[in-house]
Amino acid sequence: MSKGVTKQSENYSRWYTDVVQKAELADYSPVKGCMVIRPYGYSIWESLQQTLDRMFKDTGHQNAYFPMFIPQSYLEKEAEHVEGFAPETAVVTHGGGKELDEPLVVRPTSETIIWSMYQKWIGSYRDLPLLINQWANVVRWEMRTRLFLRTTEFLWQEGHTAHATFDEAEEEARRMLEVYRTMAEEYMAIPVLTGIKSESEKFAGAVHTYTIEAMMGDKKALQSGTSHNLGQNFAKAFDVQFQNENNELEYVYATSWGVSTRLVGALIMAHGDDQGLVLPPKLAPHQAVIVPIWRNDDQKAEVMEAVDNIASPLREKDVRVHVDDRETVTPGFKFNDWEMKGVPLRIEIGPRDVENDQAVLVRRLTREKATLSMDEVTSTVPDILEDIQQTMFDRALKFREDNTLTTTDYDELREFIDNDSGFVLAPWDGTGETEEKVKDDTRATIRCIPFDGPEVEDGAEDPVSGKPAKHWVYYSRAY
Amino acid sequence: MSKGVTKQSENYSRWYTDVVQKAELADYSPVKGCMVIRPYGYSIWESLQQTLDRMFKDTGHQNAYFPMFIPQSYLEKEAEHVEGFAPETAVVTHGGGKELDEPLVVRPTSETIIWSMYQKWIGSYRDLPLLINQWANVVRWEMRTRLFLRTTEFLWQEGHTAHATFDEAEEEARRMLEVYRTMAEEYMAIPVLTGIKSESEKFAGAVHTYTIEAMMGDKKALQSGTSHNLGQNFAKAFDVQFQNENNELEYVYATSWGVSTRLVGALIMAHGDDQGLVLPPKLAPHQAVIVPIWRNDDQKAEVMEAVDNIASPLREKDVRVHVDDRETVTPGFKFNDWEMKGVPLRIEIGPRDVENDQAVLVRRLTREKATLSMDEVTSTVPDILEDIQQTMFDRALKFREDNTLTTTDYDELREFIDNDSGFVLAPWDGTGETEEKVKDDTRATIRCIPFDGPEVEDGAEDPVSGKPAKHWVYYSRAY
Repeated sequence: MSKGVTKQSENYSRWYTDVVQKAELADYSPVKGCMVIRPYGYSIWESLQQTLDRMFKDTGHQNAYFPMFIPQSYLEKEAEHVEGFAPETAVVTHGGGKELDEPLVVRPTSETIIWSMYQKWIGSYRDLPLLINQWANVVRWEMRTRLFLRTTEFLWQEGHTAHATFDEAEEEARRMLEVYRTMAEEYMAIPVLTGIKSESEKFAGAVHTYTIEAMMGDKKALQSGTSHNLGQNFAKAFDVQFQNENNELEYVYATSWGVSTRLVGALIMAHGDDQGLVLPPKLAPHQAVIVPIWRNDDQKAEVMEAVDNIASPLREKDVRVHVDDRETVTPGFKFNDWEMKGVPLRIEIGPRDVENDQAVLVRRLTREKATLSMDEVTSTVPDILEDIQQTMFDRALKFREDNTLTTTDYDELREFIDNDSGFVLAPWDGTGETEEKVKDDTRATIRCIPFDGPEVEDGAEDPVSGKPAKHWVYYSRAY
Repeated sequence: MSKGVTKQSENYSRWYTDVVQKAELADYSPVKGCMVIRPYGYSIWESLQQTLDRMFKDTGHQNAYFPMFIPQSYLEKEAEHVEGFAPETAVVTHGGGKELDEPLVVRPTSETIIWSMYQKWIGSYRDLPLLINQWANVVRWEMRTRLFLRTTEFLWQEGHTAHATFDEAEEEARRMLEVYRTMAEEYMAIPVLTGIKSESEKFAGAVHTYTIEAMMGDKKALQSGTSHNLGQNFAKAFDVQFQNENNELEYVYATSWGVSTRLVGALIMAHGDDQGLVLPPKLAPHQAVIVPIWRNDDQKAEVMEAVDNIASPLREKDVRVHVDDRETVTPGFKFNDWEMKGVPLRIEIGPRDVENDQAVLVRRLTREKATLSMDEVTSTVPDILEDIQQTMFDRALKFREDNTLTTTDYDELREFIDNDSGFVLAPWDGTGETEEKVKDDTRATIRCIPFDGPEVEDGAEDPVSGKPAKHWVYYSRAY
C-alpha cells in the first residue's frame, strides 16, 4: 500500500487496476468475473446509495424486493428483451439436490419478474402511478471483466414504474435521468452529457433510452446511468391492463432506470491521479483525516488532546472526520495511505503545532499545504471542502471541453478518435449504417444525441455518408 | 384491504398469511418458494437494517460485499458445513450459454467464499481483528415455505470476523448476540431468551452457537438471530494462518452471526392482533398517521391547515408523520388500512376539531381514544410513542412469563407442549438421545441452554432419562 501505482501516462489501464487494489477498493475473487468489494470501496458505494436513495424517495419512489430467480420462460415473453439478455445469463438447473422442471435464470435485470407482479397489483387508474425501486445484485455473464466497470455480478438499483399514459412515462424517464445528472454533477463532481441513445445502443425492450455519459481521465466515455421509456412493451408481454377514468381497458406504460457499482469506477477514473484516488468531499467516507505526530507519551497526550479539540467541533459541523491513531505505522505511511485512498483533506498535528496552536492542512486534489491556527481550522474546513468539490467539477468540465472536437469533417473525426483525443460532436444522418461504419473504422460509438446539441442547419450533411444530417451526436470510444 | 383477517383464535397460521397480504407486506411470486417484499414490508426491513447497521458500525464493523456464487468445491472444504448446507443449495450449471467446468452454488451463507479471501488478506496479528459485515441475499432450497419465516431466497446480514485468539472470538460472538438482544428488546419490543444451542441445533461448522429465542403469539418459539464461535474450523479449511506477536504461525479464530427478513415475521407474530399488524414506534415507518376529514373544499382548506400545524412541529421533533390525504377513499377506509398496517398512532382532524382547536388520538395497541388540544398533541405525542413502545415490551414479556412452565416432571412437560401452551424450562442430561426422544414425543426441541437459567442442584435428574441433569433448558415447538 505504501508503494506507488503505475503512472497514468505509462499505462492507464494498469494505473486503474493498481488504484483499485492499493486503495483497497476491491479485489479479484476465486469466481471468474466476480469481484469482492472491500470495506473502503463499499463505503464509497454506501455514500452513493444513501444519496441516491434520498433522491428517489424525494421524488415519490419506494423500495421493494423481487426474487432474483426468473423462470426462463418469462425472459422470453418480450422478444427484444430475451434477444438482448439471454446470451449472458447464469442458469440454475438444480435446486435442493434435484433437477428443476424449468431452469431459473439469475436476474440480469428485473423487468420480467416485476411486470409479472404488476399484473396482479394493477387493475385501475387508481393504482397508478406505481413508483418502485429495488437495490439488488444482478448477473450478466461477461467474457472480459474489469473491477467495478464490468463484472459478472454487480450491485445496482433498478427503478420500475407504471403509468397511465405515454407522456407520464416519458416525464418519469426524463425526471430520473435528471436525478442521475444531479447525482453525477453535484455529488460526484463529474460533468455529464445527457441525451438519447441511438436505436442500436438502446435498452433491449425500450422505446427510448436516455443516458448520462462522462469523460474519464483517458478521454474515453463511460455510460454512467440510463433511463428507459419502455412504452407498453412489457405491459403487453405480461398482459398488464388497467381501467382508465373512462372505464376502458388500456395497457400500462412503463419506465425503468438504473445505476450500478460502475459509478465507483467513474469516480476513480474521472478524478484519480498518479498518487491514487481523489474523492469529492460530498461522497468521501472520510472528508478529513487527522494524522497525529508524536515521539513519546508526553507528546502523545498533548497532541491527542489537540486532535480532539479539532475533531469534535468539526464533527459537530457534520464534517466526516477520521482520526488515524494507528501506532503500528509511521505518519509518512499514513500520508501515503490516505492520499492513495483519496481523502480530500489531511490535517497534521505534531508537538510544535500544539505549541503554536496551529495545524497543517494538505489538500489531496492540489497537494497544496497551509498552516492554520486551530480556530481557523475548525471554522474554515467546511468552506475548504466546498471549494474542493467545486474545483473538482470545474476541472473535470474543463478537461472534457478541452478534449471535445466539433467537426463536420470525417478525416478530422477519425484522426481525433484514433489518437484517443476524446469526444467528437458531429452531424449524423440518423442511420444505423453510418453508425456501424464509424464503429468499424474507429471503434467509436454514438454515445448520445445530446438534449442540448446544436441545431442542424438546412443542407447540413453527415460527414460519413454525405446524406442529409438529422442530429448532432457525440462519438467516442467507450468503456 | 378493507376486509378483515382470519381471527387468530380460529386459525393462527391463516391469520398470519392474511396479515402479511392485507397489510401489503409481501406477496407470493411465480418462483416457487420465493417471495416479493412489497414497499410497506420493505420499509419495515429498512428500519431494522438501519438500526442494526448503526449498531454494527458502533461496535467497529465495516460492510463489504462478496460474490454470491461459490465454487462447489469450496463448500466441501469444511466437512460439517457441506453436510449441513449442500442438500439445500441452488446450483448454476450454465453461464453465458455454455456449461460451466465447475458448477457454482448460490451462497446459502458466505463463510467459505469469505475465508478464501481472508486467506489473501490476513498475514500477521496486525491484520487482526478483521470485522466485516455483509448485507446480502442468500438461497436455501426449502420444501415448505412461509412468507418472511422460511423462503428459498431471503435477505439478511452476515458478520464474519477474524481474531487472534479463541477468547477474542468468543467475546465477539457474545457481543454480537448482545447486539441482537438489544435490537429485539429495545427496538422490536420483543423479549428474548439468550443462550447456547445444543450440539444438534448448532450451526454446521461452529464450535458454539448462541441464539436469541422469542415467543410468538401462538406460543411457539422463533429463533430470531444466531451468533457463532467458529473456532479455527474455517481457518483450517482455507489455510488462514497469521504470524502472532511471538513470530509463530497460528490458525485464525472466527465468528459469524446473522439475522434476516425473518425478523419482520417476528414483529408480525409477537405483536399482531385480529385487526392486523401492531408496530413498535421505534421501528414503524410511520409513527403517526394523520387522517383529515372534510366534506367540502372550504372545510378541506381549514382542516389541511390544521393538519400542517400539527405535522410540522411533530416532524421537527423527529416524529415520523404521514399525512393520508388520499381523495379516492373514505376516512373509514383509511382507519382500517392504517390499523391493518399497524401504525402506532392515528390522529383524526375534522371541521369540528378545527373549531375546538383539538384532535382525536387513537392508539393502535389498545385502540384507546383521546381528545387533546392541538398544543397537547404536538407536546405529548413523543411521550405517548415512548409509552406505547414500553407497553408493548411489557405485554410481550408478561405473555411469555404467563406461558412458560418450569417443571421437573416429564408428563407435565408433554401435556403442556401438546396443548401448545408455550415454553418449558426443565433439567436436561445433556445427551442427544434425550433431546431426540422429547422431539419424537412432542415435536418440541431444545431452544437453548439459557445464560441465566437456574443452577442445577446436586442430585437433580433429567425428567426424561432419569440421568443426572447438567443444565436447565428451554423446550418448545418452533418455527
